[in-house]
Amino acid sequence: MSVTQVAAYAAPAAKAPLERTTVPRRPVGEHDVLIDIKYAGICHSDIHQARDGWGEGIFPMVPGHEIAGVVAEVGPGVTRYAVGDRVGVGCFVDSCRACEYCRRGQEQYCVKGMTPTYNGRDKEGEPTYGGYSTHVVVDENYAVRIPEGLALDIAAPLLCAGITLYSPLKHWEAGPGKKVAIVGLGGLGHMGVKIAAALGAEVTVLSQSLRKKEDGLKLGASHYYATNDETTFEKLAGTFDLIVSTVSAPLPLDAYLSLLKVDGAFVNVGAPEEPVSLNLFSVIAGRKTLAGSSIGGIPETQEMLDFCAEHGLGAEIELIDAGQINEAYERVLSSDVRYRFVIDTATI
Amino acid sequence: MSVTQVAAYAAPAAKAPLERTTVPRRPVGEHDVLIDIKYAGICHSDIHQARDGWGEGIFPMVPGHEIAGVVAEVGPGVTRYAVGDRVGVGCFVDSCRACEYCRRGQEQYCVKGMTPTYNGRDKEGEPTYGGYSTHVVVDENYAVRIPEGLALDIAAPLLCAGITLYSPLKHWEAGPGKKVAIVGLGGLGHMGVKIAAALGAEVTVLSQSLRKKEDGLKLGASHYYATNDETTFEKLAGTFDLIVSTVSAPLPLDAYLSLLKVDGAFVNVGAPEEPVSLNLFSVIAGRKTLAGSSIGGIPETQEMLDFCAEHGLGAEIELIDAGQINEAYERVLSSDVRYRFVIDTATI
Repeated sequence: MSVTQVAAYAAPAAKAPLERTTVPRRPVGEHDVLIDIKYAGICHSDIHQARDGWGEGIFPMVPGHEIAGVVAEVGPGVTRYAVGDRVGVGCFVDSCRACEYCRRGQEQYCVKGMTPTYNGRDKEGEPTYGGYSTHVVVDENYAVRIPEGLALDIAAPLLCAGITLYSPLKHWEAGPGKKVAIVGLGGLGHMGVKIAAALGAEVTVLSQSLRKKEDGLKLGASHYYATNDETTFEKLAGTFDLIVSTVSAPLPLDAYLSLLKVDGAFVNVGAPEEPVSLNLFSVIAGRKTLAGSSIGGIPETQEMLDFCAEHGLGAEIELIDAGQINEAYERVLSSDVRYRFVIDTATI
Repeated sequence: MSVTQVAAYAAPAAKAPLERTTVPRRPVGEHDVLIDIKYAGICHSDIHQARDGWGEGIFPMVPGHEIAGVVAEVGPGVTRYAVGDRVGVGCFVDSCRACEYCRRGQEQYCVKGMTPTYNGRDKEGEPTYGGYSTHVVVDENYAVRIPEGLALDIAAPLLCAGITLYSPLKHWEAGPGKKVAIVGLGGLGHMGVKIAAALGAEVTVLSQSLRKKEDGLKLGASHYYATNDETTFEKLAGTFDLIVSTVSAPLPLDAYLSLLKVDGAFVNVGAPEEPVSLNLFSVIAGRKTLAGSSIGGIPETQEMLDFCAEHGLGAEIELIDAGQINEAYERVLSSDVRYRFVIDTATI
């Protein structure tokens, strides 16, 4: 019941390379599970935060919010999981549990702010440390079950990349008869293509170039267009019911909005730092929606995992040793990854 | 069956004052009705177009797309209206009638472009002339019935201002239990307050100052806040399900989006010329929607008129003679109107 030190990879300071260290994990409380982490995905936002791109970083920082592992110990009050269960942890590990959003399972929109899996502070004010580690202690209500049949390594990225795309695709009703475009074919985008296709939508990839066209079609897209080709925007005017943008670079929004049908929605899950410019006529003519979406709540994350297991969907991954994390970061920044790095935490 | 010259007020050239003239009206065709215009509202966009603010104006220009009158003659194939019927004409007088939007009664989003009531060209390429006139000839399918009990003068502005607010309020489900804000208390905004309140929503006016507060509360608002008071944005953070902005000045969108609840929508029916700036985190955090809406289709315009008649809603108007049009334009531009000028066309 005492604090335990566990092995982890951490950025000791902003912009410093990650290195092996140990971090404290709290005692397994009444409703906690201790998870033996098997795999942790590398999300673009890990790099951003480890390099303190948004400011206010807490160092040393152990990134990682795409966690897949096995329950190693349960608190006395735990009812949802047993030792040996395969579980995942995503972008948050707690929330107020009382506000209207928590009550309806949209903890990501908790009015008091969810507790991020890393680079946050828990209710006791202690820093949270993420998944680049051998173990983590989490309240059972903030873990999800990874169904049998879904390998843990390809499941890990679903905890952020998967739910980030699944949630808006469901909310804006991607499905049979709907034309859906995914902007950007990276870690998020490739899951968007897989999930939208599995939902029955007709999927188009809009990518800067045709470099990954073959991959895109294999992943489930029916069409693939390069956005560096201006004729793409003429050809596809008024085509889509839904466009989900996964890119974090600012896009020419008016051009992208012109690709929507009447009542279509352009949904951002990527997050450019700087403000973007928009002519409001682009949404007025055609009653169009410019929206955003942020990950998903616990019930929807479970639903997503069940959906992925049912449809045989996992991330396309490149498995790495913990010693390769810094190199992997550089490769993510240069878009040299197909499509998600996953750390084998046995190598930490 | 020949072209008829009718009296009208027209801008002879861009930025020139409007003056009395005559314009041609086409013969009453198979499916046409000749309308004896009784009243025509003055919409802000009339001024904009008469002064060629959007370029490409067709002169001489007879503005006016808030038309209320009485059927004076019907073509042999007309089935919907008879001589003596009270009818209205709004922002368009034709559309392709074949595209998916026309077929579902959303003619305003016709893929080939609707034919505007004025400053457009009909299918024969002839200029269209609006409601600042004694008569107009319109296909019966592009006229709507003004219910008994709704006076023609206060009904006229409903044809643009009314439907422009009714449509998004219905689409985004303003009603009991919903908190709705209307930004701007002018010709559009005052109808928004009336309609949203009649739909059962709890209505707040967000206006630059508290100058019209008393009016706003009388019109049906429960709350009234000044946006030039910075504490307004702190007080109202996370409050609204729906905000409809009627202003054509560019607003600080991030501040307005912060007033929405999770899943809330900020809908623009006003149309600033210049691009606006937006931080996409404002929509990502809280899955918010920035959208637009443009008038409404013919079936929805009829529904709106029936709704207004049922709830005793008309515009608050200042009735003017045709000779006062130019003066009225100046007063609209200085926001000196409560809340819509309506021309008594008997004075043309």
